[in-house]
Amino acid sequence: MNGAEALLETLTESGVEVCFANPGTSEMQLVAAIDRSSSMRAVLCLFEGVATGAADGYARIAGKPAVTLLHLGAGLGNGVANLHNARRARSQVVNIVGDHATYHLHYDAPLTSDIAGIAGPVSDWVHASPSAEGLAVDGAAAVAAAREFPGQIATLIVPADAAWGEAGVPAAPVAPPAPPVPEDSRVESARAALMAGEPAVLFLGGPALTEEALIQAARISQATGARLVCETFPARLQRGGARPLVERLPYFGEAALDALQGVRHMVLAGADAPVAFFAYPGKPSVLVPEDAECLTLAAPREDALAGLTALADALEAPKQPQSASPAPLPPIPSGPLNVMGLGAVIAAHLPEGAIVSDEGATAGIALFPMTAGAKPHDWLTLTGGAIGQGLPLAIGAAIAAPDRKVVSLQADGSGLYTVQALWTMAREELDIVTVLINNSSYAILNIELQRVGAQNPGPKAMSLLDLSNPSISWTQIAEGFGVPAVKVETVEDLDKAFADAMAEKGPRLIEAIVP
Amino acid sequence: MNGAEALLETLTESGVEVCFANPGTSEMQLVAAIDRSSSMRAVLCLFEGVATGAADGYARIAGKPAVTLLHLGAGLGNGVANLHNARRARSQVVNIVGDHATYHLHYDAPLTSDIAGIAGPVSDWVHASPSAEGLAVDGAAAVAAAREFPGQIATLIVPADAAWGEAGVPAAPVAPPAPPVPEDSRVESARAALMAGEPAVLFLGGPALTEEALIQAARISQATGARLVCETFPARLQRGGARPLVERLPYFGEAALDALQGVRHMVLAGADAPVAFFAYPGKPSVLVPEDAECLTLAAPREDALAGLTALADALEAPKQPQSASPAPLPPIPSGPLNVMGLGAVIAAHLPEGAIVSDEGATAGIALFPMTAGAKPHDWLTLTGGAIGQGLPLAIGAAIAAPDRKVVSLQADGSGLYTVQALWTMAREELDIVTVLINNSSYAILNIELQRVGAQNPGPKAMSLLDLSNPSISWTQIAEGFGVPAVKVETVEDLDKAFADAMAEKGPRLIEAIVP
Repeated sequence: MNGAEALLETLTESGVEVCFANPGTSEMQLVAAIDRSSSMRAVLCLFEGVATGAADGYARIAGKPAVTLLHLGAGLGNGVANLHNARRARSQVVNIVGDHATYHLHYDAPLTSDIAGIAGPVSDWVHASPSAEGLAVDGAAAVAAAREFPGQIATLIVPADAAWGEAGVPAAPVAPPAPPVPEDSRVESARAALMAGEPAVLFLGGPALTEEALIQAARISQATGARLVCETFPARLQRGGARPLVERLPYFGEAALDALQGVRHMVLAGADAPVAFFAYPGKPSVLVPEDAECLTLAAPREDALAGLTALADALEAPKQPQSASPAPLPPIPSGPLNVMGLGAVIAAHLPEGAIVSDEGATAGIALFPMTAGAKPHDWLTLTGGAIGQGLPLAIGAAIAAPDRKVVSLQADGSGLYTVQALWTMAREELDIVTVLINNSSYAILNIELQRVGAQNPGPKAMSLLDLSNPSISWTQIAEGFGVPAVKVETVEDLDKAFADAMAEKGPRLIEAIVP
Repeated sequence: MNGAEALLETLTESGVEVCFANPGTSEMQLVAAIDRSSSMRAVLCLFEGVATGAADGYARIAGKPAVTLLHLGAGLGNGVANLHNARRARSQVVNIVGDHATYHLHYDAPLTSDIAGIAGPVSDWVHASPSAEGLAVDGAAAVAAAREFPGQIATLIVPADAAWGEAGVPAAPVAPPAPPVPEDSRVESARAALMAGEPAVLFLGGPALTEEALIQAARISQATGARLVCETFPARLQRGGARPLVERLPYFGEAALDALQGVRHMVLAGADAPVAFFAYPGKPSVLVPEDAECLTLAAPREDALAGLTALADALEAPKQPQSASPAPLPPIPSGPLNVMGLGAVIAAHLPEGAIVSDEGATAGIALFPMTAGAKPHDWLTLTGGAIGQGLPLAIGAAIAAPDRKVVSLQADGSGLYTVQALWTMAREELDIVTVLINNSSYAILNIELQRVGAQNPGPKAMSLLDLSNPSISWTQIAEGFGVPAVKVETVEDLDKAFADAMAEKGPRLIEAIVP
């Protein structure tokens, strides 16, 4: 058994079932080992950012890690942006990055690079295996590191000679440490704050956004009057149907502070205190009202469900909260398509158990409240702001949950960063419907250009935010990659195309022209 | 004048004319400053790897740096692979990477990352400007660093408040140091080695591959009988017509050692001693024959032209070498397209002054010798092995030399990494003809899988090297991005399509099906 085989068997024994791969020469032994493994599914991605984004999506839905297989520092580099997002989502990801044979490194061959250096900024754990003998143990450690609650990015660098060298036996799985349970004193402080009779918010993120945790949050809210607000970009929010309604903190800082105006107590569960996505001249960075007190019930790496349950119990709230009446579905308008029409159609047809990968950017922000009354579904967002996440994330979600419909709400500008994802959807026949929201621009940047105080932009500045000239045909591109596609320009056409797509299985793309 | 404006004026005063941009919110002040600059051309790229690869191609042809404009660590991450290639090409590149305002960094907002950490492995020079006052001086230093002979990657990190803060005046350009001229003792050692009457090779790379330097190399060869061999992946080789013929070192190590068998003296000019691209079990890493002596006439950062000229003079070689008779053009076959047909057609029609961006992978290696007799042209290759370089490189070359025809020989697998480049070709109406060599596989990996000793690969391994199922329609994808495209399957159809494309101006793609 060589190192690669011992590693693969260790990974599968540790519960890893899927490898999102974009291998090169230095990973050929790992490819051969995957080939011989009966338990590891290999999914080819045509760009590394697709692989890393897919691993993120898989982890968010499966609750366990997939591995990526990447080619040296350059391949890892291509995966950096979506690893950044995955790290911000606190997803469980194991990267296996091939390297030159150890004895070849000092010759500085053309593809030689500082892999650990590139991995560091997007990894919680990095290790280079020096030899075949230790590779299996390192693999088990990587999985354990990735599974550290709620998740971490673990990057294991595998030199070619460690992969082809003779190894011993596979290593035993290593259990990650259990997440810390919030101390009683924190529960008591939170209880006191929420019972002070002043406006309060329970600010939720990460693991506090599962249905189970939200039920506890609803108990607290109903006992104290505290509002439930979630972070602007949750990794996974379970919503829709009769699930507890949660407000989403607005994206722009001044809107966020408006939404929190008058709040005196913010109790954090699974989230840090909110900060502005970007700084702007004369605008605040911290999004906690000045006279509000901020208390941590459960930090992002602590057991938020336990903390929320203990708090609800301490408040002597009924075990089951009153169930919310579903939010009303917006009426479906007619005529030329716009974001209102888009939201109404999606809300009407989204099937129970759907998973939404939201990289709708400006449109996505508007679609979120409109779909609050849809059937129960999971909503996944762009956690780290590195665009090009949406399509890969949908791939991972679809592989983690093959019986659920995945809807990828994708803005055009950001979709282009990882457009190669369409091919993997076609090859794996994934049940993903991409709604490509084509406004032929980086629409958010038109707003941002004003916000940073850049006045009267001229044609050169505007050209840097514009995706027309030539306009991009997503229908042609999708079909070039093997995904059936249709272009719609009216609400009626979208309604039919989206309803049809929900009724069938398999990948397709609806290019929604939203001027 | 704010920091961004002072920086832009410094860059243009330093001779920088082109910015390959993919900006985000943190770069909006820089966008506004570009807008107000009359001397800076802004070229929008829809993915950062396109911007960094284009900057590389621009530098190889223009002999001076362009700037890239990238969005924080994630945007830089997307540019890493082609910066790796550019660094291996020793190209002149200045990266301008926006960051959060300095006072916002410690809030660890979602897009915060260790930009300098990501930049380090692909940069020769990295600097984060702390404030508006020093930004212009830092910009001048970045350009000087990039211009250090023959070129370096300089990355300047610009916090948003440094861009929008009040600055003083632009900074004066800084001249880079002149490259060291090889010492007389090295010239004398090289002369003695080549005059020893034993088989010898003048091994050429980097700046020793311009026509001017090759004429000096030809003088030396004609005076001593030394063979002229160039590195496997030259950044820019001037060839064709009556230019001196240079052998190219084969890619695979054993073939390289075969080609160098019996050689007793290797004199290096502009290149390091050759090493194998990858290590393989039981195969050598160093590609210098065991009993050969290796001498450096000019290291890659030294003045190779001066060294070669001094050596030719020391040998008392005639000032003008005998001109070579052009290599014969291969006959054009007929029938189904294959690599032979491809090479013959390209060699026949390549116009004088053409620039070839070769990322043809397995096909490209075969096309190189077949085009030796074409009219004089420049041949650019994948210097760092990070695939996805070819299309972006063609963009940069076309912008650097708008009057020259650019031919992008592009393999399908590698072309997919930066497929978004097609849109920039369309928007800028660049005179680039992409010959997309579609064999529906990562063909090189089929060879590599055998070479690392992985025997009898099964269907799962083979599926990771295969790009059919579904097959990709490059014609549809190109048209989706606005580039006119045609698919050809016979030599006759290619001959017509390629001849037509050479006769007209503007971007187009020829999808050449080469099974």
